[in-house]
Amino acid sequence: MFLALLQAPAVAPHADTLAPVMLALAVILAAAKLGGDAAERIGQPAVLGELVVGVLIGNLSLVGIDWFQFIAANSTIEVLAQLGAVILLFEVGLESTVRDMLQVGARSLMVAVLGVVTPWALGWWVGALLLPEHSVYVHAFLGAVLTATSVGITARVLKDLGRSQSPEARIILGAAVIDDVLGLVVLAAVAAVIATADSGAALSYGALGLVLGKALLFLFGALSLGVVLSPWLFSFASRLRGSGVLLATALVFCFTLAWLASAIGLAPIVGAYAAGLILEDLHYRDFAKEERQLENLVRPISSFLVPVFFVLMGMRVDLTTLMRPDILGLAAALTVAAVLGKQACALGALGARLDWLSIGIGMIPRGVVRGERIIDAATYSAVVIMVMLTTLITPPALKWSLNKQKLR
Amino acid sequence: MFLALLQAPAVAPHADTLAPVMLALAVILAAAKLGGDAAERIGQPAVLGELVVGVLIGNLSLVGIDWFQFIAANSTIEVLAQLGAVILLFEVGLESTVRDMLQVGARSLMVAVLGVVTPWALGWWVGALLLPEHSVYVHAFLGAVLTATSVGITARVLKDLGRSQSPEARIILGAAVIDDVLGLVVLAAVAAVIATADSGAALSYGALGLVLGKALLFLFGALSLGVVLSPWLFSFASRLRGSGVLLATALVFCFTLAWLASAIGLAPIVGAYAAGLILEDLHYRDFAKEERQLENLVRPISSFLVPVFFVLMGMRVDLTTLMRPDILGLAAALTVAAVLGKQACALGALGARLDWLSIGIGMIPRGVVRGERIIDAATYSAVVIMVMLTTLITPPALKWSLNKQKLR
Repeated sequence: MFLALLQAPAVAPHADTLAPVMLALAVILAAAKLGGDAAERIGQPAVLGELVVGVLIGNLSLVGIDWFQFIAANSTIEVLAQLGAVILLFEVGLESTVRDMLQVGARSLMVAVLGVVTPWALGWWVGALLLPEHSVYVHAFLGAVLTATSVGITARVLKDLGRSQSPEARIILGAAVIDDVLGLVVLAAVAAVIATADSGAALSYGALGLVLGKALLFLFGALSLGVVLSPWLFSFASRLRGSGVLLATALVFCFTLAWLASAIGLAPIVGAYAAGLILEDLHYRDFAKEERQLENLVRPISSFLVPVFFVLMGMRVDLTTLMRPDILGLAAALTVAAVLGKQACALGALGARLDWLSIGIGMIPRGVVRGERIIDAATYSAVVIMVMLTTLITPPALKWSLNKQKLR
Repeated sequence: MFLALLQAPAVAPHADTLAPVMLALAVILAAAKLGGDAAERIGQPAVLGELVVGVLIGNLSLVGIDWFQFIAANSTIEVLAQLGAVILLFEVGLESTVRDMLQVGARSLMVAVLGVVTPWALGWWVGALLLPEHSVYVHAFLGAVLTATSVGITARVLKDLGRSQSPEARIILGAAVIDDVLGLVVLAAVAAVIATADSGAALSYGALGLVLGKALLFLFGALSLGVVLSPWLFSFASRLRGSGVLLATALVFCFTLAWLASAIGLAPIVGAYAAGLILEDLHYRDFAKEERQLENLVRPISSFLVPVFFVLMGMRVDLTTLMRPDILGLAAALTVAAVLGKQACALGALGARLDWLSIGIGMIPRGVVRGERIIDAATYSAVVIMVMLTTLITPPALKWSLNKQKLR
């Protein structure tokens, strides 16, 4: 009959999009804290509990309960989850500086390159071995699927365990950034190869170089310009009247870099991490003391949004894929290739007194890449199982290896 | 070609819904802080600056610049704005207790009833006078449009000026809650009358009673049950391991009540305010000291989301409506009726040493109610202008009256 607009909070009935989002947030936050508590009680990082509780409520429909299906289907919740990942990487970035990262830069590069090449080769080989009837494109694609580190899990485990300022954490996060650049180039290459095969034209190495060049330009441009501009920006902002100016300025900086990263095809979290690296306490010394603890201001926002990311990630795990014996063999082989492939990363850390095992384990989690056009549904399900397993293995494995290191 | 899912933050290209949201948030936060600074420099509450800067960027398309149109069109930003209003009223509610509200309850009821009856009568009269060719339904509807207080602006001004714990603030907020219940009943009544006129059936007073009963049951049920359950809930939560448990529990409580309110047809902010009233420091004394300052944990989330609400509200103001001389007369008459009508609220505060002028001014802002089925586009535009003017008048007027009171 009547529809109250945004400006009419005092007249019912109300816009119906807010209601499901609030209910979903209430369910997610309650589930996350209960899951996190259970995980910590058995000595695991809280994030494992958030993932598992997400798997549970996401798969309740298997026993006929579909109360929570609206959560995974809500597009605002999905954006909030992604914002959660952005805030998480920004927060982790705040704990280090650009200088810290440059110190481990060469090592991160080694880890990233080894962590892309080895799993790609292993995945290609697994594909050729188990799917001989498929084309070489499918084998190459299966290899490519194993290259991309999904760094959110590892960043969160390191944070849960208070280890995000260790050199190992910096090497992993730096390698994940480089991974993303390489992944961008690999994807562009695969797309170009297929377009070339379709059209019969010659493969354009120039276009590939452009993709790589833009990504590198962004990274170096953002870091070097950011380091120069950030003190000026915060000095300007410190003269603004009103409350919450420091937090707002930091969020503007974070969202702008994350948006720029995504605009050139990189992951938004790469931009957010870069923004966190750039910002240093020194830049906002002009703010009043009670405002000056940026980490304390970002933490409540991360407590609010980060669990949305991990619970939703758990909800996206579809347990029915595990009930398909025809694909479990391929899934197991891919998972082993994914795990072992990243252990080659450790070679990048040789020669230094570093916890190379934790670096290899920290690189294990993989993300899902849609590739239905290239691989069939069964093969795709095997990839999804590999993603599920690497996601769920990492928190306990990383906690174990970090503790082992501490005991030595 | 490939589409990276949520779980694949490390592989490009990425889901494209996050990017515009991040850019919009960066623009909104930057604009809000610049506008807030300008407002404070001329001695006005920051919220006026956020509204005006919203009006400016929302109407840049008038001079051919449509860079910011994507913000007002983004549905996630709209939900985030509404979440901002929910968090704002929760935060304001935290500053008072249920006991504080009961003390001003009778007075709030008086203020609310006078603030509904007088503007309704005035609006009806303005309609009958200026639009004699329209039906009595249109006149009644114009009156109804003037009843609903949009309390977000006033809550924010009181907060900007550090006055949200004054008795006047409590009376206004309590009256706004009762307003919302009355507004629900009025809307149900208007809908029932029209349905009755359409179908020829008798008006069902029973159905109206049910609407009122459900709303009252929610309010009294939520407040009395909440006061009993909240200490138990927080005592349980304090035994959960993991970080951010207090904030998460408080948000779960807030979102659940806000959702319940909207489920029975009330504004979500009514539920959020009730949640804030119910929670008391005592309830979470079991938490470690550094976690215990709930207000400090909620503030960064409100610094993040509340400006989204006000800048977007400003962006929704369409300045082209002001260029229609044919409707400016009606708009001016409605605005005067809206402003004067709520001054009758002051009668509800007579006999006590209260700042009755500030109470009347605090009730001025109105929301937009869609009623195209009943009134024509020109009349509707006049309503929109009335909403714009009452929204923009309130911050400076309220600041002026509160300061005047202080000087006496």
